[in-house]
Amino acid sequence: MSDARAITELAKRRGFFFGANEAYGGVAGFYTFGPEGAALKGNVESAWRDRFTVREGNDEIEAPTIAPEAVFEASGHLDGFDDMLVECGECGESHRADHLIEDASDIEEAESLPIPEVEELVAEYEIACPSCGAPLAGRPVEEFNLMFETTIGPGSGQSGYLRPETAQGIFVEFPRLKEYARNKLPFGITQIGRAYRNEISPRKGLVRTREFTQAELEQFVNPDTDEPPLDRVADVSLRLYPADEQEDPDGGYVEATVGEAVDEGIVASDWVAYYLGVAREWYERIGVDGDRFRFRQHLPGERAHYAADCWDAESEVGGAVADEDLDDPTAGDWIEIAGFAYRGDYDLSKHAEHGDDDFTVFEQYDEPRTVERAVVDPDMSVLGPEFGGQAGDVADALRDLAERNPDAFDGDEVRVEVDGETVTVDTDVTNFRIEEQTEAGEHVTPHVVEPSFGVDRTVYTLIAHAYDSDVIDGEERTYLSLAPEVAPTDVAVFPLVSDDALETLADDVVAALREAGLSVAHDDSGNIGRRYRRQDEVGTPLSVTVDHESVEAADETVTVRDRDTTAQVRVPTAELAAELGAILDGRAAFDDLLETYERVETDVTRS
Amino acid sequence: MSDARAITELAKRRGFFFGANEAYGGVAGFYTFGPEGAALKGNVESAWRDRFTVREGNDEIEAPTIAPEAVFEASGHLDGFDDMLVECGECGESHRADHLIEDASDIEEAESLPIPEVEELVAEYEIACPSCGAPLAGRPVEEFNLMFETTIGPGSGQSGYLRPETAQGIFVEFPRLKEYARNKLPFGITQIGRAYRNEISPRKGLVRTREFTQAELEQFVNPDTDEPPLDRVADVSLRLYPADEQEDPDGGYVEATVGEAVDEGIVASDWVAYYLGVAREWYERIGVDGDRFRFRQHLPGERAHYAADCWDAESEVGGAVADEDLDDPTAGDWIEIAGFAYRGDYDLSKHAEHGDDDFTVFEQYDEPRTVERAVVDPDMSVLGPEFGGQAGDVADALRDLAERNPDAFDGDEVRVEVDGETVTVDTDVTNFRIEEQTEAGEHVTPHVVEPSFGVDRTVYTLIAHAYDSDVIDGEERTYLSLAPEVAPTDVAVFPLVSDDALETLADDVVAALREAGLSVAHDDSGNIGRRYRRQDEVGTPLSVTVDHESVEAADETVTVRDRDTTAQVRVPTAELAAELGAILDGRAAFDDLLETYERVETDVTRS
Repeated sequence: MSDARAITELAKRRGFFFGANEAYGGVAGFYTFGPEGAALKGNVESAWRDRFTVREGNDEIEAPTIAPEAVFEASGHLDGFDDMLVECGECGESHRADHLIEDASDIEEAESLPIPEVEELVAEYEIACPSCGAPLAGRPVEEFNLMFETTIGPGSGQSGYLRPETAQGIFVEFPRLKEYARNKLPFGITQIGRAYRNEISPRKGLVRTREFTQAELEQFVNPDTDEPPLDRVADVSLRLYPADEQEDPDGGYVEATVGEAVDEGIVASDWVAYYLGVAREWYERIGVDGDRFRFRQHLPGERAHYAADCWDAESEVGGAVADEDLDDPTAGDWIEIAGFAYRGDYDLSKHAEHGDDDFTVFEQYDEPRTVERAVVDPDMSVLGPEFGGQAGDVADALRDLAERNPDAFDGDEVRVEVDGETVTVDTDVTNFRIEEQTEAGEHVTPHVVEPSFGVDRTVYTLIAHAYDSDVIDGEERTYLSLAPEVAPTDVAVFPLVSDDALETLADDVVAALREAGLSVAHDDSGNIGRRYRRQDEVGTPLSVTVDHESVEAADETVTVRDRDTTAQVRVPTAELAAELGAILDGRAAFDDLLETYERVETDVTRS
Repeated sequence: MSDARAITELAKRRGFFFGANEAYGGVAGFYTFGPEGAALKGNVESAWRDRFTVREGNDEIEAPTIAPEAVFEASGHLDGFDDMLVECGECGESHRADHLIEDASDIEEAESLPIPEVEELVAEYEIACPSCGAPLAGRPVEEFNLMFETTIGPGSGQSGYLRPETAQGIFVEFPRLKEYARNKLPFGITQIGRAYRNEISPRKGLVRTREFTQAELEQFVNPDTDEPPLDRVADVSLRLYPADEQEDPDGGYVEATVGEAVDEGIVASDWVAYYLGVAREWYERIGVDGDRFRFRQHLPGERAHYAADCWDAESEVGGAVADEDLDDPTAGDWIEIAGFAYRGDYDLSKHAEHGDDDFTVFEQYDEPRTVERAVVDPDMSVLGPEFGGQAGDVADALRDLAERNPDAFDGDEVRVEVDGETVTVDTDVTNFRIEEQTEAGEHVTPHVVEPSFGVDRTVYTLIAHAYDSDVIDGEERTYLSLAPEVAPTDVAVFPLVSDDALETLADDVVAALREAGLSVAHDDSGNIGRRYRRQDEVGTPLSVTVDHESVEAADETVTVRDRDTTAQVRVPTAELAAELGAILDGRAAFDDLLETYERVETDVTRS
């Protein structure tokens, strides 16, 4: 573990990520992933796709990143996707008012406070502009919409926005997606792609950027009948930080299995609990440190009004807190890396209201049901002469009333309102009756359970948790103990010295390992120690060196070095691909190699 | 092969792609890839990455899609990335003037004509507004910049643009990328990602969209010393359509191998020729029909002024031309699916000029070279008193002159210009001399070779070329004969009927095939014929059916059906994963199965 500065320095030097467009002074909040970072990020996305799309039996789609205004009017982003902006009267710099308050006080989640209160707090804490030091008291605090706006087409064109989340591209296509799912709930749609937030004043490097990658799953369920396969994850242990513990000054973590969390009502939704379990296992698989990981429930003020319950996955990335002090939930630098929300029917209902399509699923009953239904069949030969041009409207009003309030037809006369006037009709004329009707099913607006992952922050967490150092031959060594599944490179191959025989064999080894499906780096420049360090710093789990013994001894062997322990073992090339493949996909450990083959005694000291 | 309408219908019905945001009326030029399309597109991207990144030993990066204005000022997009816009005076609709002219006349590439000529042609051909029919003669034709603009940050903020190509995100980071390549040319950087063009009036469905995916390779080379490994592709046959053949009314294709194309100077750049060969093989691998594929050279008017040579890969997607008529290059509906440009040092020089960083590579000579260099070392004790405050400028001017024109120091006196004045200095005072200097290398601005692929158009081409139909039992069947590497699903597994034993075995077969790394669909709804049709339409190469014989016979067998021929064979489940794996990765053919195992005689007739 190390601090943000060390991670940023390594990330830039080794090609994980760096601020984009630096030749032009850069723009805050935009990062480029270099070769190592793009490979790591791609591996995280593949692992996510494997777990949340393929293994869950879900389908992935790819929607555009630009959508027209109407979509975000419906989703609520046009009105509500705001941050609090305060502009310095002196230097003109813009800042997030809620962040300034959080920095200057003990207040957390200042975002949820009303604007007048935020303005008062800016004055009360005598907050100064972080750029020029001028006082900000008295400056207006305004809502600033975080969507990037653009114009589609020439001229005045049409307003479009870069999507603030990938999710809307799924919701808005629900009418078509349900067809591919053959109108059967539950089903899940995933998407991995860019999303955008025009942050007022991005800080914290890769943790708060204006352009980022999300991996989202929208699970559509019938709230009355669909249940998650909870038994698959019932025994997974979760470290939970419920809202009431956060509000209690002495509050702490609750350790519970998924099963217990559901039984004890700590997590309200079975579906959310199921995905907490799946996510917990997945984070472990890709190398998130379980001691620096928790699920934190949203406080009531944080939660969107439509979300019945919401939990964030959080990781500790500051590295300043010792392992034994991590029991204190207030210690450390925690960042949100995923959110798990029960969104109810909010999204689909909003699009049904604003859009012109059917956002329900027709759920067939197991067998047709007979229901009693009040119907009218007004006698138009009476209504026509009596109400003239209004007769049709009167008939419609009677039908509505029968559905809404059948009791209104109990008397001799029935009253309905048409064009603001009350009209009276003889009940006989309406032909009111209760009919038995057979119904095959009903239209259901599915509820949505949304596990939403931040890919960039996951990448950052993996580097922070993998960052480690020791001392080799008296010199500090930095290495990334990345899980093989996400490491940019599986194996590095080195000819020990520049020599035709060694280089030929090294090329053969590279080809054989690539043929076996491994990602292989080949490096023949610099001394062997420097080459090992380079691979250590980019997290390559195994390094293979071809030396003189490789080409001179009777059996062709090469040395294999373990990144974390630096231990070395001599393995026949004939066994190499199979042995390394087994270690990389977790079927074997490096220690198994040490037991099977000859250990190489090096004069390297490690402490 | 079929026409655009049939492809679009199938694409929508089966979940390949469809117009986005249809519930809100849609916006032209934006498409969503449904589950099948996203899988097909992902497979194309993986195949591209394998060929152009991994196998070529290149590195992939991921840059933001938004960049600040300065980047596009340097790249030339701010000034030059325009289309010709004509707005109807009657209905206000905007149109591309060059397209209208091409539709109304025999003129091709009207885009390269100057605006006044375009305005004249609009009048000459009496072109009417396609939307309302009003005449467009006399309407002004204007340049419309195709970049989507947005504002970064609050307030007036900073202008930003959505990238019109992924390439600039590579060029602008060259100073850092060369470090990762350890300052050694040649090296290549790839990127797969979204790019944006705010088309005036997008038509042609997926072929001309406002948001699309590019796969680009920027190959950085030393133009004096680096050569491509031409021998790897020297024998690959290319169908070339050179510029002079296009300009000749009787012109036709030139068939040549890569080696011949280079030797005969048909393709000017070795590097471009190399990548034409690599691309030709790759297109064949993913299933592009070689008869409906060609490389067309840009006409002089089409080419960017800095591009020494440029070839497009084009595919024929109209489907109306019979195979035997494809010798005529003017027949058919050809679309550009990739471009191969020799861009010289244009991109890096522009960024060196506008940006603040070093866009050269220091190329070390094999051994240090001794060069003669003219130097001066002006005697300041003379210049100082003589020129006062100007003395330093005079000395600088002398140094410049010595570098530029050593002969100027031949006489007794030397003249330089300082602040617009000519001053005269005794040659002795300048201490002019020729020195031998040892140089270890030189700074080189690399040249760029750019293979740039349109992923969406490649996907469209694959569907168009795979679209086929026949008649099964008197009923027309549509199927996509997609290559297994790109097909969304490898194998579909069906229990023949709803039965516990059959379903259990089907689940086991699914699990075993997935374990073997295949992508598997499981379908148990509808009659078996409908399930086959469904898989045929999404291009699944093989279908496995578990029937009563599977669970009753002594050896456990299932039937395997070939998509294209509908032939069926009975294979033991123990051999299934290995046999299907071999067919899918091309090591075996379905006919091999028919020879090894029992053919299933069906009463299906096919014609």
